[in-house]
Amino acid sequence: MTCYMIRLRYDGTDFCGYQPQSNGRTVGGELLGALRRTFGSVTSLAGCSRTDSGVHALDYRASFRSEKRLEPQTAVRALNAWLPDDIVVFGCQYVSEDFHARYSVTEKEYMYRIRNSSLRDPFTDRYTLLYPGVIDLQRLNRAAECIEGRHDFTSFTNSGASVRDHVREVKHAYFTRQEDEIRFYISADGFLYNMVRIITGTLLDMASGLIPYEAMPDIIAACDRSVAGRTAPARGLFLNKVVY
Amino acid sequence: MTCYMIRLRYDGTDFCGYQPQSNGRTVGGELLGALRRTFGSVTSLAGCSRTDSGVHALDYRASFRSEKRLEPQTAVRALNAWLPDDIVVFGCQYVSEDFHARYSVTEKEYMYRIRNSSLRDPFTDRYTLLYPGVIDLQRLNRAAECIEGRHDFTSFTNSGASVRDHVREVKHAYFTRQEDEIRFYISADGFLYNMVRIITGTLLDMASGLIPYEAMPDIIAACDRSVAGRTAPARGLFLNKVVY
Repeated sequence: MTCYMIRLRYDGTDFCGYQPQSNGRTVGGELLGALRRTFGSVTSLAGCSRTDSGVHALDYRASFRSEKRLEPQTAVRALNAWLPDDIVVFGCQYVSEDFHARYSVTEKEYMYRIRNSSLRDPFTDRYTLLYPGVIDLQRLNRAAECIEGRHDFTSFTNSGASVRDHVREVKHAYFTRQEDEIRFYISADGFLYNMVRIITGTLLDMASGLIPYEAMPDIIAACDRSVAGRTAPARGLFLNKVVY
Repeated sequence: MTCYMIRLRYDGTDFCGYQPQSNGRTVGGELLGALRRTFGSVTSLAGCSRTDSGVHALDYRASFRSEKRLEPQTAVRALNAWLPDDIVVFGCQYVSEDFHARYSVTEKEYMYRIRNSSLRDPFTDRYTLLYPGVIDLQRLNRAAECIEGRHDFTSFTNSGASVRDHVREVKHAYFTRQEDEIRFYISADGFLYNMVRIITGTLLDMASGLIPYEAMPDIIAACDRSVAGRTAPARGLFLNKVVY
């Protein structure tokens, strides 16, 4: 039995998220199909994150086991031959038996892309949120800083999540700007359901004046989803980095 | 009667080129529909270039006339409300009666994007040619330089073109590299049918060893399509700039 870890990128636009399901096209479902064609059979397939429908990934990790032992480069080539155009595998390595793509994660970083413009753009609309208003990056970064550290993030998760413990540690949260593109980077030891999208939506509601910039500590302390802002759309969200 | 010039960007992937036709979705056809909805009726619609099926544009120009006089910013907003997601108008200005988006052009620049990698990429495959081999940019740039100047470009156009005069003046032709992306920029007073794609294909055939790097002057002199290289695919080609 050989244990593998693979790295993949995918354009989430046309997927119902990562998690395989009986209805709808999923990244995990397509991956499982390609793994079966390449390895015959695999067991213990695990993805590093259950990304939502429409969310993209630049460096997703998955682990699995198989009786068949392939050279990593051979596995990459074979998998890519079977995978659809919107998923690509760019790395494969052997891992120890106790490695699990999801449970072994120590830190994950997401990136949210915002195009600060009043005009649609045919080349980037699939991957960015269009935000036409003025954005004061300095004030936004001060609000984002309040999120850093160990907090109960109940205000930033949508109901329906079965997870009981809502305490997570955010390592960093900041915005950058390059021309008309603004990016929000957030890294944590784990994320609750919709957490990045609600944090991003709340920060953008601050930029547009719906929520005061100074309200972040109170929103965190409230532990109440209704005091935070809207959920930003999935199209701008990318899983950017995973640390083990 | 008011004369207008508009600037547009489009993702050419799902279009049968610019030129309106009875079968197939075209940029010009979609544009005409949006112009009619915005202006009631328009005359003398002209595009700056008959881009091929699949070719993209970052700054395309079109001119037209209408009895209706709209403020440029109003026209931009109205047109974008009617245009599909893969076309956006980002500029509009009044022009003199003798302006024609195609005949008034003095120089056009195309850009060809090549991803120098052995792996597909879901985010850029629509807009780049995947080229996995080693590319010697210095030797390619020396070959590209031979194209600059006034030449008969018969070797670089596909039959079926009705244009008799094949002499064009290339102002510049060069490659740049940034990480794994190589770009070829070529500017001229005009281009023959498929000229940029055949020049790009010929240069890439040099990179891969099918044609010697030193052959460029002979290929130009031959005035024979069969001695040049293949036609590079449309997906990597962008109309980048138009000068009047």
